[in-house]
Amino acid sequence: MIKAGVIGATGFSGIELVRLLAEHPQVEISLLTSQTYAGMNISEVYPHLSGKVDCILSDLDPEQVVAESDVIFIALPHGHSAGVVKEAYNQGKKIIDLGADFRLKSAEDYEKWYKTEHTAQELLEKAVYGLPEVHRVKIKDADIVANPGCYPTSVILALMPALKENLIVTNDIVIDSKSGVSGAGRKAKVGMLYSICNESISAYGVASHRHTPEIEQELTNIAGEKVNLLFTPHLTPMTRGILSTVYVKLKKTLSLEEVRGIYEEAYQDEYFVKVLKPGIWPGTKLVAGTNNCFINLTLDERTGRLVVVSVIDNLIKGAAGQAVQNMNILFALEEKTGLTNTAVYP
Amino acid sequence: MIKAGVIGATGFSGIELVRLLAEHPQVEISLLTSQTYAGMNISEVYPHLSGKVDCILSDLDPEQVVAESDVIFIALPHGHSAGVVKEAYNQGKKIIDLGADFRLKSAEDYEKWYKTEHTAQELLEKAVYGLPEVHRVKIKDADIVANPGCYPTSVILALMPALKENLIVTNDIVIDSKSGVSGAGRKAKVGMLYSICNESISAYGVASHRHTPEIEQELTNIAGEKVNLLFTPHLTPMTRGILSTVYVKLKKTLSLEEVRGIYEEAYQDEYFVKVLKPGIWPGTKLVAGTNNCFINLTLDERTGRLVVVSVIDNLIKGAAGQAVQNMNILFALEEKTGLTNTAVYP
Amino acid sequence: MIKAGVIGATGFSGIELVRLLAEHPQVEISLLTSQTYAGMNISEVYPHLSGKVDCILSDLDPEQVVAESDVIFIALPHGHSAGVVKEAYNQGKKIIDLGADFRLKSAEDYEKWYKTEHTAQELLEKAVYGLPEVHRVKIKDADIVANPGCYPTSVILALMPALKENLIVTNDIVIDSKSGVSGAGRKAKVGMLYSICNESISAYGVASHRHTPEIEQELTNIAGEKVNLLFTPHLTPMTRGILSTVYVKLKKTLSLEEVRGIYEEAYQDEYFVKVLKPGIWPGTKLVAGTNNCFINLTLDERTGRLVVVSVIDNLIKGAAGQAVQNMNILFALEEKTGLTNTAVYP
Amino acid sequence: MIKAGVIGATGFSGIELVRLLAEHPQVEISLLTSQTYAGMNISEVYPHLSGKVDCILSDLDPEQVVAESDVIFIALPHGHSAGVVKEAYNQGKKIIDLGADFRLKSAEDYEKWYKTEHTAQELLEKAVYGLPEVHRVKIKDADIVANPGCYPTSVILALMPALKENLIVTNDIVIDSKSGVSGAGRKAKVGMLYSICNESISAYGVASHRHTPEIEQELTNIAGEKVNLLFTPHLTPMTRGILSTVYVKLKKTLSLEEVRGIYEEAYQDEYFVKVLKPGIWPGTKLVAGTNNCFINLTLDERTGRLVVVSVIDNLIKGAAGQAVQNMNILFALEEKTGLTNTAVYP
Repeated sequence: MIKAGVIGATGFSGIELVRLLAEHPQVEISLLTSQTYAGMNISEVYPHLSGKVDCILSDLDPEQVVAESDVIFIALPHGHSAGVVKEAYNQGKKIIDLGADFRLKSAEDYEKWYKTEHTAQELLEKAVYGLPEVHRVKIKDADIVANPGCYPTSVILALMPALKENLIVTNDIVIDSKSGVSGAGRKAKVGMLYSICNESISAYGVASHRHTPEIEQELTNIAGEKVNLLFTPHLTPMTRGILSTVYVKLKKTLSLEEVRGIYEEAYQDEYFVKVLKPGIWPGTKLVAGTNNCFINLTLDERTGRLVVVSVIDNLIKGAAGQAVQNMNILFALEEKTGLTNTAVYP
Repeated sequence: MIKAGVIGATGFSGIELVRLLAEHPQVEISLLTSQTYAGMNISEVYPHLSGKVDCILSDLDPEQVVAESDVIFIALPHGHSAGVVKEAYNQGKKIIDLGADFRLKSAEDYEKWYKTEHTAQELLEKAVYGLPEVHRVKIKDADIVANPGCYPTSVILALMPALKENLIVTNDIVIDSKSGVSGAGRKAKVGMLYSICNESISAYGVASHRHTPEIEQELTNIAGEKVNLLFTPHLTPMTRGILSTVYVKLKKTLSLEEVRGIYEEAYQDEYFVKVLKPGIWPGTKLVAGTNNCFINLTLDERTGRLVVVSVIDNLIKGAAGQAVQNMNILFALEEKTGLTNTAVYP
Repeated sequence: MIKAGVIGATGFSGIELVRLLAEHPQVEISLLTSQTYAGMNISEVYPHLSGKVDCILSDLDPEQVVAESDVIFIALPHGHSAGVVKEAYNQGKKIIDLGADFRLKSAEDYEKWYKTEHTAQELLEKAVYGLPEVHRVKIKDADIVANPGCYPTSVILALMPALKENLIVTNDIVIDSKSGVSGAGRKAKVGMLYSICNESISAYGVASHRHTPEIEQELTNIAGEKVNLLFTPHLTPMTRGILSTVYVKLKKTLSLEEVRGIYEEAYQDEYFVKVLKPGIWPGTKLVAGTNNCFINLTLDERTGRLVVVSVIDNLIKGAAGQAVQNMNILFALEEKTGLTNTAVYP
Repeated sequence: MIKAGVIGATGFSGIELVRLLAEHPQVEISLLTSQTYAGMNISEVYPHLSGKVDCILSDLDPEQVVAESDVIFIALPHGHSAGVVKEAYNQGKKIIDLGADFRLKSAEDYEKWYKTEHTAQELLEKAVYGLPEVHRVKIKDADIVANPGCYPTSVILALMPALKENLIVTNDIVIDSKSGVSGAGRKAKVGMLYSICNESISAYGVASHRHTPEIEQELTNIAGEKVNLLFTPHLTPMTRGILSTVYVKLKKTLSLEEVRGIYEEAYQDEYFVKVLKPGIWPGTKLVAGTNNCFINLTLDERTGRLVVVSVIDNLIKGAAGQAVQNMNILFALEEKTGLTNTAVYP
């Protein structure tokens, strides 16, 4: 059994991690930390875990959590991981950071977009961007896995086949993403109150969202040339899910069948990514509660653009589920272990 | 492997059954029928099943479905089960009817409340009311399991301990239930449109809902004396879940601790039913997607009433999950097999 | 023009008051205060008011607000009104308090249920409970109007005709209310986050909610004998609206027509209260955005109970709209002035 | 008083028209027709109108409705207006068609996108596209007003200032729109059930939606050169509202202040259109229940694109409200008459 510790266990990503780890056949939870609820049983904070997870939440003591765990999941806001990551790295323990601290290869980019100093720059090169469908081989041997952001996961999976095959113009990419409110986390904020969010969709972080450089970095890697894109997220009145609608220009004329063929081939061996049949446009609910990504696409002959739509559950494939998928790779388990459930629908 | 056929596989209860059966370790789906979608692959109707269930939907041929199955689940509206049930009974196959046709012991009551003739009255005495927490022993040997209604499940579990111990006045019971919209099924009705249901709660079937005699029958059985109750359901702007608030009068003075003790003891060995800690009032989301029932209660000293609140997922413990639980009992499997998942929260 | 000041203008009740006052043909807003946003233009906090209300929010200075206003609306949490109320009373200005401080006639009850000292007890006898359908005549001459709570408004209107006519048993009343989330106000709390509230209904304040003594006080007044009741509120996944389902026992046998007749007569001259036709059970959406209360009822012959269902918009008839209705009475305007809009449906 | 008839009064656009007309100070409803509910009082179908509109619904008799009305509003699905429009035109009565039949100037385009024959082609040239902010002068004298589609309204208002000033590249326009479910109308369809729509956002009509040629026609008119665009609508889990996010390329380098200046100037005299302050991105809830359109925009220097976000209420500015605005123009009333209410928020 793998001993897994979760730092920040009571945020929304944290609690999904706890659920997935508790149901994972080869994991034993070693330690859960929570700044807010230390000392309480996690099932008092989250009664849906009653009878499933009985664990007293601890204050964060980096030495202790590293000592007691084989793998440490960090589910903290960005800027808070350095201490634990250093300790874990020094003790040779595996780290999966769900925050943003190790996603950008460039500390300069990090400091520009996140407006905070990066205090563990020396470890950036040890980190692997944990999108298994792209970096599976490298993840296997990584010390630190930088678990991707939720939006980037949905966008990179939507564009990887097209970029890999050099189909699209790399400086004319428009990405319009729609996220459920849980993406904003569990912190009490007026803007995330039910009464404010319900019956309203709005754009935010327009032309300035921090996931922009992350998406560009990864798409640039895949394309082999500089990608430049415009990314606009929207807050949508639903708890779960991200839908990304991606608009790109083809470099040359292709039929829809050819493009579909490339996507289907790219994902034919991927357990979690599925290209739906023509005409079936995925809603986020189809993947809610799962580690799946559903994709469909079409060509608009009138404008010469390819439209790709992808959906994920922001807290699972976009956070906790992908983290478990990465853990499975790190520990040489079957990649889908503990992640095979179907969506509860409707 | 148990060969399971589902009749009416594309309704909301049907599709949940399909999901649960597909994930069940000891079941093989033999046949799925659908009046509306016969000839289509079920994953075209429900893309969340893509890659999980590949099965062409059939027209209903009672002989065929009985011949090919060890157990037949019927997920049809009331009044449509007689043909298959007779065929299955005659062939010695197990039947689990999610509809209302075999729940009421009295054909007269059935015809009064459902305003339709009962065409298989001779089989009523072969049917066992499939609430395992009450009738587990009888279910084991049943030919026909009448799977309980969603409201009755939530109410009976809320009152069983109190009635069994003779704590409450049996003719002064007020039940106020709130259900998500999925309880109304997948049929297109104006009243169930998103735009009509959203941002609105309303009462319906006031003093006339068909689950009233079902609840009374079962509570009367448990109490050993005639129970008379008032039941009012409400349509609530959410997809899943039932919350029942039950107001009863104590026969004699008891402390809250005494009543809690009785409830905790009654359910201490039940995997699916949980009495939450004092002060934690369950929301429906805590059990969404699971076969669980969470309960809490308090005494109102000012009026001498006991208030019990229970929550279930109407499509799982209130339908498909309980049906699988019954199948597990019928086939001598561990009762919780295939039903152990935790709620996806939030 | 009446000069109206609003204290606590940026809470949910406050902002509805501002909207209603801005659209009122005989009101001029004199001053809006806000602890959190003092110094900002209200349309920066609430952009829906852009071009409608241009007003810089002030810090609360009781002398100033009283000096500049003919009527002062207080939309603060309970326990914060004493200072302004005293100042206004001394200066002979009219006060409408949307909080709870002047609703209970007994300071002892107040201190027991609200667990805080009452610091303006000498003014309790000057306050009139501002439910116009009950206390219209007294309100006309009141100095202080205690604007009713949202739940009490829905419940008192549901029971007034029956109690006035002495139809029902006064110590056997069960009230099950369901409220939208806006009732909890605009304060950032984890429990009111979209992701927590959505897709979940739950009970709270069971047998302990502070509106209990308020409802009892008023029903006792109407009945002319001590009323004892059990009140249970539920948090419902919608922004607006309260639906109260009230279960009472008839003192003697009456036909449904007789009871309906009593209700219809009681409300025939009320502009805002409407008894719907038989069989049309009101959803909260029917009154959203309005000052209306819709009611329907039936008799359950099986249990001898009368079931009354009422719906209001918690922020309008349950708060700001009723406050404006009270102002209209205080200033001898037509009572419906500024409150005649129809619900925006669906 | 203007005598107004509404054909198709019980659809969602129809019922909003009825509400607005009933509250309009210079209108008297002459006749309401409904195929489904003819013979019933409208307040039985829509109880929120109880006490506000008492009118028996009629079958559609074109001669009668034209004879009894000064203006006829048609709120039918496309393809059903020809008969009434011809009759009204011949009798010299004003027509406002909320359907799509008279929006496209080219019958060929109509038949290509709507896949049905146009049976009143001779009247196409009599119709004026009823977006007052663009065609106010022509509307004044129109016989037939083609009330714009909901999506086109939100998009044209978002782009008009930029196109008028020749700021943007006309063949590189990406439009990503998100609509509430009420846009799909009141017809019972499985895909519009609460349980299907809730907690899910999805794209539909990708690269094929019928509003595409309508938007292109109008933008081409404004730009004075051929506009070619890609339009993708999304079904969003909310009842009301459209948010359109529009991505365009600037023809030359401009500062954000310059572009904002052009937008602010363009709309400075428009009562219903408002450019919000920098950084305040409008949510659909800000305009729900109103005839307003709120806009904001920014420049993305990284990609040289302008991003414009607009929000409207799809049933008001996107349908019934705009129809009343058009009526006001036709009858030389102040344009905002009956349309000045503020959003009910939250």
